[in-house]
Amino acid sequence: MPANTFGEIFRLTTFGESHGKAIGGIIDGCPPGLQLDFKDIQNELNRRRPGQSRLASPRNEADEVVFLSGIFEGNTTGTPLAFMIHNNDQRSKDYGNLENVFRPSHADFTYEAKYGVRDYRGGGRSSARETASRVVAGAIAKQFLQKHNIHLTAFVSQIGTEKLADIPLKISKAEIEKSLVRCPVPEVSERMQKLIEALKAEGDTLGGVISCFINGVPVGLGAPVFDKFHADLAKAMLSINAVKAFEYGSGFAGAEMRGSQHNDAFLMEKDKLRTATNHSGGVQGGITNGEQIYFRTAFKPVATIMQKQQTVNKQGEAIELQAKGRHDVCVVPRAVPIVEAMAALVTIDHFLRNKIYQNL
Amino acid sequence: MPANTFGEIFRLTTFGESHGKAIGGIIDGCPPGLQLDFKDIQNELNRRRPGQSRLASPRNEADEVVFLSGIFEGNTTGTPLAFMIHNNDQRSKDYGNLENVFRPSHADFTYEAKYGVRDYRGGGRSSARETASRVVAGAIAKQFLQKHNIHLTAFVSQIGTEKLADIPLKISKAEIEKSLVRCPVPEVSERMQKLIEALKAEGDTLGGVISCFINGVPVGLGAPVFDKFHADLAKAMLSINAVKAFEYGSGFAGAEMRGSQHNDAFLMEKDKLRTATNHSGGVQGGITNGEQIYFRTAFKPVATIMQKQQTVNKQGEAIELQAKGRHDVCVVPRAVPIVEAMAALVTIDHFLRNKIYQNL
Amino acid sequence: MPANTFGEIFRLTTFGESHGKAIGGIIDGCPPGLQLDFKDIQNELNRRRPGQSRLASPRNEADEVVFLSGIFEGNTTGTPLAFMIHNNDQRSKDYGNLENVFRPSHADFTYEAKYGVRDYRGGGRSSARETASRVVAGAIAKQFLQKHNIHLTAFVSQIGTEKLADIPLKISKAEIEKSLVRCPVPEVSERMQKLIEALKAEGDTLGGVISCFINGVPVGLGAPVFDKFHADLAKAMLSINAVKAFEYGSGFAGAEMRGSQHNDAFLMEKDKLRTATNHSGGVQGGITNGEQIYFRTAFKPVATIMQKQQTVNKQGEAIELQAKGRHDVCVVPRAVPIVEAMAALVTIDHFLRNKIYQNL
Amino acid sequence: MPANTFGEIFRLTTFGESHGKAIGGIIDGCPPGLQLDFKDIQNELNRRRPGQSRLASPRNEADEVVFLSGIFEGNTTGTPLAFMIHNNDQRSKDYGNLENVFRPSHADFTYEAKYGVRDYRGGGRSSARETASRVVAGAIAKQFLQKHNIHLTAFVSQIGTEKLADIPLKISKAEIEKSLVRCPVPEVSERMQKLIEALKAEGDTLGGVISCFINGVPVGLGAPVFDKFHADLAKAMLSINAVKAFEYGSGFAGAEMRGSQHNDAFLMEKDKLRTATNHSGGVQGGITNGEQIYFRTAFKPVATIMQKQQTVNKQGEAIELQAKGRHDVCVVPRAVPIVEAMAALVTIDHFLRNKIYQNL
Repeated sequence: MPANTFGEIFRLTTFGESHGKAIGGIIDGCPPGLQLDFKDIQNELNRRRPGQSRLASPRNEADEVVFLSGIFEGNTTGTPLAFMIHNNDQRSKDYGNLENVFRPSHADFTYEAKYGVRDYRGGGRSSARETASRVVAGAIAKQFLQKHNIHLTAFVSQIGTEKLADIPLKISKAEIEKSLVRCPVPEVSERMQKLIEALKAEGDTLGGVISCFINGVPVGLGAPVFDKFHADLAKAMLSINAVKAFEYGSGFAGAEMRGSQHNDAFLMEKDKLRTATNHSGGVQGGITNGEQIYFRTAFKPVATIMQKQQTVNKQGEAIELQAKGRHDVCVVPRAVPIVEAMAALVTIDHFLRNKIYQNL
Repeated sequence: MPANTFGEIFRLTTFGESHGKAIGGIIDGCPPGLQLDFKDIQNELNRRRPGQSRLASPRNEADEVVFLSGIFEGNTTGTPLAFMIHNNDQRSKDYGNLENVFRPSHADFTYEAKYGVRDYRGGGRSSARETASRVVAGAIAKQFLQKHNIHLTAFVSQIGTEKLADIPLKISKAEIEKSLVRCPVPEVSERMQKLIEALKAEGDTLGGVISCFINGVPVGLGAPVFDKFHADLAKAMLSINAVKAFEYGSGFAGAEMRGSQHNDAFLMEKDKLRTATNHSGGVQGGITNGEQIYFRTAFKPVATIMQKQQTVNKQGEAIELQAKGRHDVCVVPRAVPIVEAMAALVTIDHFLRNKIYQNL
Repeated sequence: MPANTFGEIFRLTTFGESHGKAIGGIIDGCPPGLQLDFKDIQNELNRRRPGQSRLASPRNEADEVVFLSGIFEGNTTGTPLAFMIHNNDQRSKDYGNLENVFRPSHADFTYEAKYGVRDYRGGGRSSARETASRVVAGAIAKQFLQKHNIHLTAFVSQIGTEKLADIPLKISKAEIEKSLVRCPVPEVSERMQKLIEALKAEGDTLGGVISCFINGVPVGLGAPVFDKFHADLAKAMLSINAVKAFEYGSGFAGAEMRGSQHNDAFLMEKDKLRTATNHSGGVQGGITNGEQIYFRTAFKPVATIMQKQQTVNKQGEAIELQAKGRHDVCVVPRAVPIVEAMAALVTIDHFLRNKIYQNL
Repeated sequence: MPANTFGEIFRLTTFGESHGKAIGGIIDGCPPGLQLDFKDIQNELNRRRPGQSRLASPRNEADEVVFLSGIFEGNTTGTPLAFMIHNNDQRSKDYGNLENVFRPSHADFTYEAKYGVRDYRGGGRSSARETASRVVAGAIAKQFLQKHNIHLTAFVSQIGTEKLADIPLKISKAEIEKSLVRCPVPEVSERMQKLIEALKAEGDTLGGVISCFINGVPVGLGAPVFDKFHADLAKAMLSINAVKAFEYGSGFAGAEMRGSQHNDAFLMEKDKLRTATNHSGGVQGGITNGEQIYFRTAFKPVATIMQKQQTVNKQGEAIELQAKGRHDVCVVPRAVPIVEAMAALVTIDHFLRNKIYQNL
């Protein structure tokens, strides 16, 4: 019943509320002998942090990660790796008025109904702040995967109605990071930024889509029939706040294709079995086939809008709600490292699972 | 590492290959004292069975389920409920020629690469025949859920390019079952059938989309932050053969909406808190809010086509493949009970999980 | 919540009641490519079977195992391996009178109280017949372990008050199987048999102790801090019907020793680090150290005695109970293959767990 | 593969090395709405702490627990409850000389062999300091259990060769805490203290036995066939550092009894079904029967002795080792709260598991 644990071998358990003392997590099952690049971990956290650009919320969460265990002389030891991030910029007073209010399309009501008690400050446990812990674990997973030549690249392919029409198969991290909205095609990035600024003026918010590639995944990862590689990816993505949809390979568009169009013919490329096309998205029968893995995941617009809304309070009375505080028009650009982190957790977990039956 | 087990409390473990002695499963954690309707279970299996209509494959798998344990005088006893379905109509000779061939967009290559050995007859473990075991477990789950006034209704909303434009909020099972393709709107059903017959003549195949409603789910199911109700639904759907995509509530379309459009305002309906709209799809923060749950899941076209295809054999030689045997143009209508079954497994599991902290 | 599943990687799920259609199980996670010796599996089952010798119950359970999946051309395929054993010799009529009775020191009352319903025939799920499924899985595990030069040897070291005073470090399977009570020292075996026959005449029953060695276990198995090798062994043993106690290495006697006596000095034997003594029982800090693993496990006397007993029925009325049917005076000799099986399940599971971080 | 996680519903994951920044843990699945008594939690930690009496080690670990999440206004919220204890008094220099040494009957060698790297300071992860995290979680579990009238009482029944001959069925916590060695019978306590002081002078160490009662456990806890109540207790105990043996109810002595002596006759006491004797130790068929649960667990003598020992270093060279630093002659009295904590974790977990099927 691991509600707050993700993974079977490389297992992340997270803790923490938005305005408690700290958030953080424990990674159990991290391979020993991995030399950690702490700067890189902090850099990933910074990519997720609010207040990175003029487009994002002005909150200044330092989000500095502190490791408490599992590391000796810079190397992982195979024992649980605990870490925490203090909640510095709490401003709980901004949220005092939310004690009795159920904000529309937030989790206030459902948490209250399920647990009978909730830390209402800043969304408490349901706050997307929790995902910072996932980014830390994902950064460590990515460092491991990079040593095995596996690379993850996520980017924004849609914000509201502005979409990246054609997605290039190769995208550099640098191009993505150059864009304020993490969209690698400059003209689309420009349009997205304009849309965000227009909506900001209206006090309204936007959703979007993040696309992700995983390159270098060896043949054989995934554990059918239930723990299919893409099924675990789907769960990973849907577990991220505000995510509404997931597709891999041909996705929903695949449902419109005919078998003769959709099938990926096998061919030999030197000594390696490849496919001529990749509608399979790098996974067949739940097991990776060595091709590029790609998937897309949709985010709904931010629920906190700067407009008056009708809602109900704890006493069941109709009230009018006007949000205060500092909020993002669109969190999708900041969600790029979260998508990468969760995809990395799935990948490292199946990479390690697949080691079991090798070299027996 | 439960590759072949699904669920935390109501746990289904399945076994069996397409052409082995039998397929089946064990359900551990089924509540005791549930009086089973065996006819209903068999009826669900019949809905999944090939050869139901002139549109489907002429194979005649009897698919009769036999229960081996966990039931006493017609009631579940709380002990593991084992069941099996014999593989009668095996015709393994049809598949003898597949020993060395990697069929395009099948799992032949990935299973061979991962395990080093595979039962190549009829796809072996990767065959969709395995889902019959899920239908059995799902039928039992549905019987339990019905006693708690929870009802699941899945139907075909798209085959190839033929789509159901507007989806009515209330659909009766009878309307769905009247349609040969399990699409409840007669004129669309008609178009879908024509498309299937046209493709059959060409030896080509089709995919599609199944939509599903879950009504009567109480407030409070789901276990954030990872085991969110919809995240477990996503994994359940993506674990079904040929599924490429999942969305719930507003889904991918939600990414185009603004917050002011997407937010579901709360209001009181008599003593009950409701939402004015339901873009949330019945789940907020990973926990059900009492509204109707709805989701859509996309299936790729059937990989076995009656046309010549280029591929590669085990020896790495390019070969031309011409499928023989009996195959469906479109399996989406038969997948309706599978989608319901997997959704029922998720629902009963979270229903039981949520019992833990009640009445303490 | 895997009540009927044992293991993390090599996972056995068992099903079945004493007088239902069949008992059996599913092994998920068995390494692929293992060529099975089916005769050996059946032989292990025969070792557990009632009616082996004049000392044991005259029931004649054929206990023939049938495999349903996971094997292709005699080799495991890495997919779930399902098996079943039909319940042939059921004679349920012998047990009809037990519908309303709570037999002393049986599980009738606790099952009834927990589940509200129970299959009372022959103890139902609580019958030791369930352990036949463990023996099947254990036999497969032992075949795998033998290929890695790991060998398990269990034997009876005590029946009632008759004990094996000095336990030789090397005991051959042949010596054990020569004894009707599976005690490798002929004169003690003789005394044990006489004790059993004396008690049979009185309609009374006996318990005993089984000792077990595991030889050839490599350094490094075990997963602290909770899944210590010996902790998993303890759970495995205590999960067997009638077991009351477990000790490994020095055990309870170790509590009387001083540190200077108990510590196992390290020394080099050629290139291998060894210990001069082995009070640690082959495990230090929860991880195997390459020395012989040994442990002892105690069984209470059989609860079904051929004497009148006072008890209570379902209606809460005091009644007098006189057992009928065919029962063993002492099941400990038949439990030898069960102890080996459960120890093998622990060993193979940790062997495979330890593979994860090798060759990274 | 939860090596550092214990429990299915009330799940404790611990982290931390003896000389790292901190130790601690996350409890996932703690029931919401539990008002915590923080003083009581700290008091339990103090019972485990070194340096409590003149008999124990003079180290002064403050062991102050800090909670980071999962609590709002003094109540648990149903979200993960994280806590940490800083490692203040580290004196790592004492251990610098142990970098290359494998101390006899410690886990230095096995950790080095398994992980290839280890934090050698003070035993690192293998240090019994880790159990402080268990005591914190156990204290919370005990507070929950007390509200349901379930009470745990552990005490020292043996140190070295000094034993408590007859164990009274009712023992007050006060009597136990009055004794420096936590043995409730003053004359035996006195003899134990003398033995400890005698061994201290010799630089030698002692083991012992802790007995434990659990009173008020309702009928029905335990999940056969593998997660039997007593099987989970056995694993819990054997997972504690230095534990070598476990027995419940009649234990090893039960193996010498006859069925006619051992069987616990059922009788009615007013409206309640009871047993006349309790050789079953409160568990039948793996399920609690409402009687007192009792068990005994044996600890080996402390491995660090103040005498010269032969051993081997990392380079495989024979060396002579002379321990320095501050060490206990006997840790068994300090292990009393650890035994209670682990027993409480098992009890709360099965208590919550049993809630699932109630009130359906």
